[in-house]
Amino acid sequence: MRRQNLAVVLGTVAAHSPLSRADVAGRTGLTRAAVSSLVDELAARGVLSETETAPSGRVGRPGRALAVSDRGPAGLGLEIGVTHLGACVVDLRGEPRVWHRVERSNAGRAAGQVLAEAAELAAEAEAAAATLGLRVAGRVLAVPGVVPNEPRGLVEHAPNLGWHAVRPADHWPDPATAPEPENEANLGALAEYWHAEQAAETLVHVSADAGIGAALVIGGRLFRGARGFAGELGHVPVQPDGVPCSCGARGCLEQYAGEAAVLGGAGLVGGADPVTVLAERAGAGHPPTLLALERAGRALGLALVSAVNLIDPDGLVLGGAYAELADWLLPAMRAELAARVTVRPWAPEALRPSALGRRGPVLGAAQLTVRRILADPTLLPAAATESPTATATSSVRSAGEV
Amino acid sequence: MRRQNLAVVLGTVAAHSPLSRADVAGRTGLTRAAVSSLVDELAARGVLSETETAPSGRVGRPGRALAVSDRGPAGLGLEIGVTHLGACVVDLRGEPRVWHRVERSNAGRAAGQVLAEAAELAAEAEAAAATLGLRVAGRVLAVPGVVPNEPRGLVEHAPNLGWHAVRPADHWPDPATAPEPENEANLGALAEYWHAEQAAETLVHVSADAGIGAALVIGGRLFRGARGFAGELGHVPVQPDGVPCSCGARGCLEQYAGEAAVLGGAGLVGGADPVTVLAERAGAGHPPTLLALERAGRALGLALVSAVNLIDPDGLVLGGAYAELADWLLPAMRAELAARVTVRPWAPEALRPSALGRRGPVLGAAQLTVRRILADPTLLPAAATESPTATATSSVRSAGEV
Repeated sequence: MRRQNLAVVLGTVAAHSPLSRADVAGRTGLTRAAVSSLVDELAARGVLSETETAPSGRVGRPGRALAVSDRGPAGLGLEIGVTHLGACVVDLRGEPRVWHRVERSNAGRAAGQVLAEAAELAAEAEAAAATLGLRVAGRVLAVPGVVPNEPRGLVEHAPNLGWHAVRPADHWPDPATAPEPENEANLGALAEYWHAEQAAETLVHVSADAGIGAALVIGGRLFRGARGFAGELGHVPVQPDGVPCSCGARGCLEQYAGEAAVLGGAGLVGGADPVTVLAERAGAGHPPTLLALERAGRALGLALVSAVNLIDPDGLVLGGAYAELADWLLPAMRAELAARVTVRPWAPEALRPSALGRRGPVLGAAQLTVRRILADPTLLPAAATESPTATATSSVRSAGEV
Repeated sequence: MRRQNLAVVLGTVAAHSPLSRADVAGRTGLTRAAVSSLVDELAARGVLSETETAPSGRVGRPGRALAVSDRGPAGLGLEIGVTHLGACVVDLRGEPRVWHRVERSNAGRAAGQVLAEAAELAAEAEAAAATLGLRVAGRVLAVPGVVPNEPRGLVEHAPNLGWHAVRPADHWPDPATAPEPENEANLGALAEYWHAEQAAETLVHVSADAGIGAALVIGGRLFRGARGFAGELGHVPVQPDGVPCSCGARGCLEQYAGEAAVLGGAGLVGGADPVTVLAERAGAGHPPTLLALERAGRALGLALVSAVNLIDPDGLVLGGAYAELADWLLPAMRAELAARVTVRPWAPEALRPSALGRRGPVLGAAQLTVRRILADPTLLPAAATESPTATATSSVRSAGEV
């Protein structure tokens, strides 16, 4: 009950700050005494700050304004991509405060080595956050791979990194600060959901790094499927008797719209940043690139026809690297959807490019911790401590609730 | 709080009856005084019965055993199919007590006429239930059509009946007893979920009457999509450049596995009960029928590959009329799934035929009311009344919660 009221007060301040304690009581229906006690606890946990405001024209004491703290607890997002490492720290207001990104070829390297480098980047980001008064309270790692529901903490398979059954905590310098892995497409979808002005309640988010993944957000929560494998769009058949796929089947979407297929169709070879090369070629009107992207868009559209028929989303977002190619992918995608989704209302603008693009997954990873704290402030220690030892080992986790 | 405790007590009795009041206290952790008060209220609402049991070997008073009532409140399920009308009354224990089914060609007839006949069947079923001491507390109508999330009570489109924007309450003799319409595939899926010994938490239920529909049950609840159109499996493309479909697209599943396609492939024409004819022909080894069913099974399997990739269900059920053709459909379906779902664990036995078959939708329609009562017994009037007027107008509804 108190836990719920803490979240209600914090959520009210987050949505409407600055507010006085009286304003919070007015908006929540809680008594002023209850609000004061809850605010004191939230302040002790470091999530609310209260500042003196300039005296208003009204008679009486100068006001004190509550706001979600821009110091104190924060979320660290990490990302291991095929060609980069990333880190981001987000404060409790949801604002990104620290960004780190290094280009690094991670495919086929030993997982332990890659994770050691990610841990270095994490330490740098946490140090940078500390200079801003931010204390990382939870760490989430975005990976381009399968992270099953059970057991938690395991990357079962990340084909484009060459990982099998990797548990980041086994390779982290201090297991107490090891990040919780999560599929990057899932995190990108959550970031998109949280970022949207008017979020779709049923969102399908399509993204591609080297592979193609979709993620489903239903009623504000990730839908992971029975075992965590939902959203495997890359192996939806788009030509049943088509091109053989590495998975053993034929005609999977990945063979038409995956990075390798598009690069091959465009007559290009993969480099450090193939998406930028594709966008440049397409922007310059290079005919094979335009054709390859149109073909990829048709295949993506066809796979999404199945997704729309089965899931009936009110939002469909093209994210990740695809977002940067949206100008060339979207026309063919929308045409396929318009031609094939006819037995229900379907608005072409329901399919739109992500506003976050390639930053989505690492941003989602950082925000996951923040959202968990906002939903349950008691996840934080009752008295905020400045002791670096204590803070380094505290970690906000949730049993797959978000 | 009391509402929740009422449901806890009722659920405990439903799962473990017969139980004494003391047993209920032991199992729920509620005090004996609280249990007594809750039991009294449940008895007053007519959902629990308490009977004297034969004296046990133990010393003391003869025991009194609590059980969910097999009299009193009940759920009425109705069904309007293309070739029949059905009705079913289920008691609070979940037992079907009354079944009515009449063959009736409903395609293309005026909706008002069909609904008037359904109302007659409903009245007969309620009368039969009354002779068993059962009082219908809620009415749900299974229809082969689209029932959007909003506005409730509307059948937007039922192509195989020829219905557009039909509101059953507008045609029901007494609007107060008009049934709440729901898509038959959804109800069949719920019935399957409730009936299973070990229910899959993420269930995809495929069924066919004249069209093909899938329904998704996630965590015990129907997933209807953003606007109620989820599970439109019949228009998943299985051959992108294939047979033109009535929807305007090409290669939709319905053109390969729908009733008309299978009948055509088998060289048969539709009669009163085409599924039985197909099953007889297939059972007799009629080669064109066997080929048509194998082709339908391959197409169904292909469409379900998309569903498995996107949704990651732990259960996949072949229901409705398809269940009666399972012997000939399942081998090709399982072969497609085995060949194409390779990047995750997938057990062929996860796809199984429904145990309920064509009775599923009407059974689900009847049980929906019972499940709502079990989840919230306060939906019933506080004192069970025997007055026919009062009972005829009472109706258990829920704002789309189940």
